[in-house]
Amino acid sequence: MAHEAAIQALRALLGDRLATAQSHRDLHARNETWFAQALPDAVAYPETTEEVSRILAICHEARCPVTPFAAGSSLEGQHLAIHGGISLDMTRMTRVLAVNAEDLNCTVQPGLTREALNTELRATGLFFPIDPGANASIGGMAATRASGTMAVRYGTMRDVVLALEAVMADGTVIRTGSQARKSSTGYDLTHLLLGSEGTLGVITEVTLKLFGQPEAISAATCRFESVEDAVNCVILTIQSGLPMARIELVDEMMVRGFNLSSDAGLPEKPHLFLEFHGTAAGVADQSRAFAEIAEDFGATGLALAERPEDRSKLWALRHGAHYATGALAPGKRTMSTDVCVPISKLAEAVTAAQARSRALGLTCSIVGHVGDGNFHCGLRIDPDDAGELETAKGFVNALNDLALSLGGTVSGEHGIGIGKQAYMAREHGAALGYMRAIKQAYDPRGILNPGKLLPPEDA
Amino acid sequence: MAHEAAIQALRALLGDRLATAQSHRDLHARNETWFAQALPDAVAYPETTEEVSRILAICHEARCPVTPFAAGSSLEGQHLAIHGGISLDMTRMTRVLAVNAEDLNCTVQPGLTREALNTELRATGLFFPIDPGANASIGGMAATRASGTMAVRYGTMRDVVLALEAVMADGTVIRTGSQARKSSTGYDLTHLLLGSEGTLGVITEVTLKLFGQPEAISAATCRFESVEDAVNCVILTIQSGLPMARIELVDEMMVRGFNLSSDAGLPEKPHLFLEFHGTAAGVADQSRAFAEIAEDFGATGLALAERPEDRSKLWALRHGAHYATGALAPGKRTMSTDVCVPISKLAEAVTAAQARSRALGLTCSIVGHVGDGNFHCGLRIDPDDAGELETAKGFVNALNDLALSLGGTVSGEHGIGIGKQAYMAREHGAALGYMRAIKQAYDPRGILNPGKLLPPEDA
Repeated sequence: MAHEAAIQALRALLGDRLATAQSHRDLHARNETWFAQALPDAVAYPETTEEVSRILAICHEARCPVTPFAAGSSLEGQHLAIHGGISLDMTRMTRVLAVNAEDLNCTVQPGLTREALNTELRATGLFFPIDPGANASIGGMAATRASGTMAVRYGTMRDVVLALEAVMADGTVIRTGSQARKSSTGYDLTHLLLGSEGTLGVITEVTLKLFGQPEAISAATCRFESVEDAVNCVILTIQSGLPMARIELVDEMMVRGFNLSSDAGLPEKPHLFLEFHGTAAGVADQSRAFAEIAEDFGATGLALAERPEDRSKLWALRHGAHYATGALAPGKRTMSTDVCVPISKLAEAVTAAQARSRALGLTCSIVGHVGDGNFHCGLRIDPDDAGELETAKGFVNALNDLALSLGGTVSGEHGIGIGKQAYMAREHGAALGYMRAIKQAYDPRGILNPGKLLPPEDA
Repeated sequence: MAHEAAIQALRALLGDRLATAQSHRDLHARNETWFAQALPDAVAYPETTEEVSRILAICHEARCPVTPFAAGSSLEGQHLAIHGGISLDMTRMTRVLAVNAEDLNCTVQPGLTREALNTELRATGLFFPIDPGANASIGGMAATRASGTMAVRYGTMRDVVLALEAVMADGTVIRTGSQARKSSTGYDLTHLLLGSEGTLGVITEVTLKLFGQPEAISAATCRFESVEDAVNCVILTIQSGLPMARIELVDEMMVRGFNLSSDAGLPEKPHLFLEFHGTAAGVADQSRAFAEIAEDFGATGLALAERPEDRSKLWALRHGAHYATGALAPGKRTMSTDVCVPISKLAEAVTAAQARSRALGLTCSIVGHVGDGNFHCGLRIDPDDAGELETAKGFVNALNDLALSLGGTVSGEHGIGIGKQAYMAREHGAALGYMRAIKQAYDPRGILNPGKLLPPEDA
């Protein structure tokens, strides 16, 4: 068995919370997208920071890879143990350690999911707004700098994480940040760890900003004759300063997926899914102001969803986009793109993506957190069909190049993982060397999620 | 002359933009607080990124210290060349390189001041909200992670910087971030450089988020019987979710300073200085809601300032706090503290600071960006009076310890520089070693602003 010494030491530490059975390994080898399964040699289930620290000390000593895992919902293969070693399953660390309602923050363990956190918070009048669709873990969301539908109003994980506890490669436990809302004391290690995908340290506690539940919430949908009209409506809405809580693009192919998977009964045209937060009067003002803008772009069928159950239905549909894309071509896998461009370039980027996918004959849905300039194409492919795989990769490549040429980025929220390393040098140029220098300084033995985020040196 | 080889090479590069005359060196040796003057060996005045790159390459080769300088307004000695070498004066790099109004951003050179930027932006309907009082340079504000009066609404430099260009120790030019509003591609070098005080690289371009000028603005003042009442009013205002644009505490001693320095004619009681931004109706709603809360804490004399000239007068007074503190004890110097605590702990921290300064017989004004939990004590001291200096240092020390014990930080916005290094280990513990590792990796010869931010290894 590979890494036998490490596994024996870990078993001595964890007992039956160190699993080598095939069933445990299989469960940690899966992913939601098109990547090949990747089996860890063993799965460790720590329950405390102290245990995570000891696990890392053992693996550091034995040079055994450690790949953090929680919900397994990452979309660029971040949680896959592609070099074997230990899958570090954080799903037993799910406690809410503190809710400081008067300071509008909370501290949680990394395995807690965002939905479980919001259930815990319900009675406080506060909520946690970051919402990537999947019921992801807070630790995973921190590690990939996740965002989602409400980022346009409340920000991303970059904006709402106040402090972290993390275990570094050799087992050293550090704390970054504080409960203070701001600080100017030294290098910002909180933001360095956010988005580092487990390659610099393992996040063991997260302190999050919380927000007051809005007095009034109203959701809505409307449809347009073209994606271009829908996106231009979004651009003007954002530029006019309307404080949208959600403004999501769903193209006609995505609507077809909703109709197939959920019998949604929507006209197969580009839609916007919207939400307004504020006082009752404020929400009414916002939705009136939006309706005026939308009318100028030919929007029809503007329908409000004000009852909680209607809103939930609407957002459940939107959050099911990844699965609904599956209904467009059953039996295949989904390759998801994730570019983000300056908002003024969004119509150009979305229409180019739609036209190119059609020209290439790809089955492609488009959804987008368009208020941020961020959108995803969901391509249904058979990874064993070399031609189709190449066509899809070529599409992603061209879209990434377009995003960079428009002043954007190759990932708004999914991260790099194993899927996007080829674009790191293109996006970051000489800065990539300064990223490598940090990895080398923090994890000289390369045990932390090896093979992720940074491309191979000779690539 | 020290560093003669470097200075000769720099003169060959820059001609008379490399100055060794005493007058130039003196101008760069000054500071606004109590630190001793520190003379650079020479002052370099680059005009382009390319020149900054060549300057650093020369200084790297010659192991000559380089200390970035612009407005000279930093409050912890960040701009002082305490190990000699080159003062890198960025005040000739003041261009606005791009205003992308439709994307709500701009890119500027680092020597541009925040006031000059807002003058440039006036016709666009956009503005840049970060406002530390002093007319600081954008580069310096980025390097110290500055904030100021509007951070409670618009965030700090941490929140509004989208992208940077920086020159690293050996002259390598890197770009971090993009015009996209969010990104998950690799380690967040933008946030690593923000707040690094010129110790990791020299910032040569900054891309900033901009905001639409509010439709309506209303400022106000009111007074309270005690600092505790004023702060408790702030706490409830923030907790109730009122979107304050500014909410500033000015204690009775600070008011006395305003009266002495500006003949302000204000009752010498604790005041709040406020500003509301929004639609006309929204601003009226906000100020009504605030008035109701304030009344519960015994506020009196609530006076609105709605005309631009009245608002300007009000904020000019507030921004003159550092100088007005001087009027409380002419002929001395000001030592400024800068703690930030969770908002629920703010009354405890402010009242403790006020009581302690009185017990110690210190001349002390208190002003605060209290919506963030951040406040400053301005102590007037004679640095040559060893007893008074020790008393003041002891006060700062105790206040920092209190802030840390309350879950806060020893600097909300002024940074570490030379003044706060002693607290780095206390605030960051084992994380400090991970900060040192980055410095070592990025600047192995220690030429970038040596002696700043990180305490000596043996301290």
